[in-house]
Amino acid sequence: MISQKWSKLIKSLQLKKYRKAEQLFFVEGEKAVLEVLASGWQVKALFGTADFLDRYPDACAAAELSHPCTASELEHVGTFTSNNAALAVVAIPAQQQFSETANNWTLVLDNVNDPGNLGTIIRIADWYGIKQILCSSDTVDVFNPKVIASAKGSFLRVQLHYGDIATWLQKAKQPVLGAFLGGDNVHQLPMRSTGGYVVLGNEANGISPAIAAHIQQRITIPAFGDAESLNVGIACAVIVDNLKRITAAV
Amino acid sequence: MISQKWSKLIKSLQLKKYRKAEQLFFVEGEKAVLEVLASGWQVKALFGTADFLDRYPDACAAAELSHPCTASELEHVGTFTSNNAALAVVAIPAQQQFSETANNWTLVLDNVNDPGNLGTIIRIADWYGIKQILCSSDTVDVFNPKVIASAKGSFLRVQLHYGDIATWLQKAKQPVLGAFLGGDNVHQLPMRSTGGYVVLGNEANGISPAIAAHIQQRITIPAFGDAESLNVGIACAVIVDNLKRITAAV
Repeated sequence: MISQKWSKLIKSLQLKKYRKAEQLFFVEGEKAVLEVLASGWQVKALFGTADFLDRYPDACAAAELSHPCTASELEHVGTFTSNNAALAVVAIPAQQQFSETANNWTLVLDNVNDPGNLGTIIRIADWYGIKQILCSSDTVDVFNPKVIASAKGSFLRVQLHYGDIATWLQKAKQPVLGAFLGGDNVHQLPMRSTGGYVVLGNEANGISPAIAAHIQQRITIPAFGDAESLNVGIACAVIVDNLKRITAAV
Repeated sequence: MISQKWSKLIKSLQLKKYRKAEQLFFVEGEKAVLEVLASGWQVKALFGTADFLDRYPDACAAAELSHPCTASELEHVGTFTSNNAALAVVAIPAQQQFSETANNWTLVLDNVNDPGNLGTIIRIADWYGIKQILCSSDTVDVFNPKVIASAKGSFLRVQLHYGDIATWLQKAKQPVLGAFLGGDNVHQLPMRSTGGYVVLGNEANGISPAIAAHIQQRITIPAFGDAESLNVGIACAVIVDNLKRITAAV
């Protein structure tokens, strides 16, 4: 059973202000909960169906507390329409200092608002071996349950840093690229850098002028048809794929 | 005002069986409604705020019927949380026969279930100039309001054909590629075809064995990190981007 106290706490963690106050967030679903249990992150409480707790006793031992409950309780306190496995309440790890890494790319998000887009971008970063993402303070919170759900465990392997991205870009020692319409074709970039920054903008307004001022090279995905734009997650994937292809060929 | 009769009809069109019975679907939001009005598609009824109808009288003249209404009525009958512009009820056009096109790619979807994924794939096709998508009968319906919303007008320029994709692939005269883990690296494809088929599978299960039997070349997006997989929309974008890059260089 999930006690009233826990139930109230978990529901409150859907909102950023309570996540910030409690320094906790939650992870839902079998696969993601197993990943967080195996990650070394501090799992304060685990709520699992009898079946889940039975099947994964070793994994579950990583949680500080473990409570059996029903699927309908998990669905009641969490955000998934269907969850017949588990939910973990996890401590938000301390934000580490950003430091520029040689020979790898860092993504920079200027006010990305949609949780699904941020989750997708984290998953793309993880696929392509990108370890760090810089987020403007107004970018959606990584510990939002929808971000966590769409990142599919990749949030455990990619570090997100929130803060003043202009300040970080000012100090950049590697090239700063930005996704714009009308920039250089990503299929034909002369650039052979093996690392740097890729700036992606807000879903509706793109990159803000204050941030655009720090961009050294504007890049564009070539269009062959009539769509006006691509979703920011799609643009991120295509750009990073091209940069990694070029880098791998260096 | 939106009459009871129209309100009931529009709400029913959220379900495929009523869309099929009425041969109607709806489009929401300023930009998409303006695109459908300009497209030549048959707009049976247009519901718009006074502001929308005032601002676009010429565009609105394309609708057979036009009714002023409030934003809250639009939000009540439609699926958007916020819509202060318009909603159009549109006739489903007759499905055209599929015919293989030389020098272009055709996407083939094997049971893609998520409406957001299908909408994203349609938008990607439109960006890259792909004109046709073959969908298995169990792929989500293109006229689902969530598909229409995420396709952002691109559904007007890309033809979707629903049916037995195995039969189409059997008759293929151009190469049939499929997205798998462990296939040929899309960054280094020796293939120089300027057209063919790209098969993408179900979100959870990938391409079914019956369809896999028709695939001549398995292709894979190289991973540089630890994510297990990429979302089907993301995979579609990266694969098509690579194929168009190679084709453009031929």
